[in-house]
Amino acid sequence: MSMLVSALRSGRLLLRGPCRHVRPLRAVHGAASRGSQGRSLLVAAGAAAVVGLAAGYSHVQRAEMAQRSLGPAGEELERRCQSFMAPPVTNMQELRDNPGDMKTHMELLILETQAEVCRALAAADGGATFTVDKWNRAEGGGGVSCVLQDSNVFEKAGVNVSVVHGYLPQESILQMKTRGKNLKTKDGKLPFCAMGVSSVIHPKNPHIPTIHFNYRYFEIEEADGNKQWWFGGGTDLTPTYLNEHDVVHFHQTLKDACDKHGPRYYPQFKKWCDDYFLIKHRGERRGVGGIFFDDLDSQPKEEIFNFVESCAKAVVPCYIPIVEKHKNDPYSPEDKLWQQLRRGRYVEFNLVYDRGTKFGLATPGSRIESILMSLPLTARWEYMHSPSPGSKEAEILNVLREPRDWVQ
Amino acid sequence: MSMLVSALRSGRLLLRGPCRHVRPLRAVHGAASRGSQGRSLLVAAGAAAVVGLAAGYSHVQRAEMAQRSLGPAGEELERRCQSFMAPPVTNMQELRDNPGDMKTHMELLILETQAEVCRALAAADGGATFTVDKWNRAEGGGGVSCVLQDSNVFEKAGVNVSVVHGYLPQESILQMKTRGKNLKTKDGKLPFCAMGVSSVIHPKNPHIPTIHFNYRYFEIEEADGNKQWWFGGGTDLTPTYLNEHDVVHFHQTLKDACDKHGPRYYPQFKKWCDDYFLIKHRGERRGVGGIFFDDLDSQPKEEIFNFVESCAKAVVPCYIPIVEKHKNDPYSPEDKLWQQLRRGRYVEFNLVYDRGTKFGLATPGSRIESILMSLPLTARWEYMHSPSPGSKEAEILNVLREPRDWVQ
Repeated sequence: MSMLVSALRSGRLLLRGPCRHVRPLRAVHGAASRGSQGRSLLVAAGAAAVVGLAAGYSHVQRAEMAQRSLGPAGEELERRCQSFMAPPVTNMQELRDNPGDMKTHMELLILETQAEVCRALAAADGGATFTVDKWNRAEGGGGVSCVLQDSNVFEKAGVNVSVVHGYLPQESILQMKTRGKNLKTKDGKLPFCAMGVSSVIHPKNPHIPTIHFNYRYFEIEEADGNKQWWFGGGTDLTPTYLNEHDVVHFHQTLKDACDKHGPRYYPQFKKWCDDYFLIKHRGERRGVGGIFFDDLDSQPKEEIFNFVESCAKAVVPCYIPIVEKHKNDPYSPEDKLWQQLRRGRYVEFNLVYDRGTKFGLATPGSRIESILMSLPLTARWEYMHSPSPGSKEAEILNVLREPRDWVQ
Repeated sequence: MSMLVSALRSGRLLLRGPCRHVRPLRAVHGAASRGSQGRSLLVAAGAAAVVGLAAGYSHVQRAEMAQRSLGPAGEELERRCQSFMAPPVTNMQELRDNPGDMKTHMELLILETQAEVCRALAAADGGATFTVDKWNRAEGGGGVSCVLQDSNVFEKAGVNVSVVHGYLPQESILQMKTRGKNLKTKDGKLPFCAMGVSSVIHPKNPHIPTIHFNYRYFEIEEADGNKQWWFGGGTDLTPTYLNEHDVVHFHQTLKDACDKHGPRYYPQFKKWCDDYFLIKHRGERRGVGGIFFDDLDSQPKEEIFNFVESCAKAVVPCYIPIVEKHKNDPYSPEDKLWQQLRRGRYVEFNLVYDRGTKFGLATPGSRIESILMSLPLTARWEYMHSPSPGSKEAEILNVLREPRDWVQ
């Protein structure tokens, strides 16, 4: 059964209940890169049909494309966009008109990363169907949310792109001040543009860790016209049980990506990750770390972009081999229970400490479903649960309490 | 099989893993008010044996009591304390020496409320066994946590008493300033005493609502020796599905308790409750409300205490009849699923907005397990879940979005 037919039968093509500021564009997008050429075409055709069905949007765009000559750069842009889960958030004409702008580079990178990761996850899952929502934000911008829920391998997998602009909320200006950013506002207002790809993948099997990654770019225009910009991001792993081989593979892949740009990135950002993902009230890290950085602005923009691009390209190779290795591992109800307790800790970190979640919840008109898709499908809290010493549950807790160095 | 034997067999008497600042005193306490006189005695004897076993604490206390004559007031105090789930947090001699102090009144009220509620829940459950942990806080004070987990009727029921003192953390001083409390600190320090009973009861059956209540008293000593004090508290209900009869009974019982002390309390505190338990990012209240108040200090202390006492005494009659009525209601997997999604919202409110949780997580040396026992045993988050119009899921959502007046 093709993925499109499967989606139609399961009713997932039905537009969901009304959602403020959200215009669904496509409802499904299969693992188009997998299988035979014929199958890819079928899925692509199916997806196009859905676009027409859902919003009558793509017809117009394709008609417009056919009528004009785009030139080599425009055609290259079109070609890149074909592989995305949905068309860019920013108007195509604006992207074509600003090929050298960092905002254009970054929007294409995050959409490309989203598509690469979704295809890899769908392939690892063995035929998963992503729900794809393209949404607009009334205050400016929008995004593309791709979600897989209760599939073969994944409990919940969300890969979200957002490109938003407008005025920064007061709460965020204050928060940025505490981070040393002295921003000159005009009448308390500060125009901003923020874009990023953000993802959390919660697998079903307790022997496959959860992964989170996020790569983002910020621009702020101060009252005197001065523009501030910075990059942030990171990739980190949260296993239910410790598998040292997996953790070393994960860190080594990230280190290799970092080392291409200089020897100081990995050690610095590995430590930053351990420090950032601390569940302070538990005295535990959320997971076994990875890399994390924010406010990167002290080198030329293009240099930092190239670094961020390498990190984004490392997501699939650092994670998918671990998924493939463990997706058929047997597990017990006790393993599942421990996984659910760890999911509870994941929720605690995300709702109490995570800067991105706080920024999202405080930003007017932000899409709550996309922000909170990082939460697991299910979680558990037991009073006074404490693993017995020497157990495999105690083993991972020790690592979360005392982070280790995994690669030299 | 007696509850003690049952507890011994199930291993619940074993002291759990090491917990900082926590000294377990009793491990179990049954529904002592239930059943025959013989059974009550057996449980009481059992509990005493456990005290000896766990900490060798009560022997000393009882020996001390036997050696001295307490006088009528002292004997009355002893008699009250017999019904508690564990001895008071404050030294008995200190309580005897300060019979007129509000701190003494309040500590006895919160311990009495804890015992009444635990007994009523255990009776409704049909023989539940509470885990009772008496704990000390290194920085000053301590508490008594009573928890029932995965029993016949309850998924998780926690009734917690804490009596803590020391210096207020800087974060809390700042938070109080935003609430209009201008507190004169000395070298940035502010001695405080905070005590309260706090409880969240999550039943298994989706037709029994979750209840939360909390009654607390605060004293702060400013740099110039001036003492500020206030009371706070409330009781509120979170149903999975709307049962108007239950909600009216709940609100009417609270209103009756309030009305004894003046006609303005209920309407004012009902509105405060609707405003406080708002999950802002969802545009939904956590539940169907009840009463909520804070910073009560504009009437004589004794008057406010009497009001708080009436509210605390209303917990059992406002809730237990609803538990009894629905505890054998049949329910479907769909009902359970919706309950789990609502549990997710409960977690969102508690971790993102709840002032008590934030205060607890920010207070050095606070007992995390007691603070987070408000979280449900299990919760669920689905991407873009939206009930169909006209369904019973949509019915309760409408009430959460637009709070109603339930009693006149």
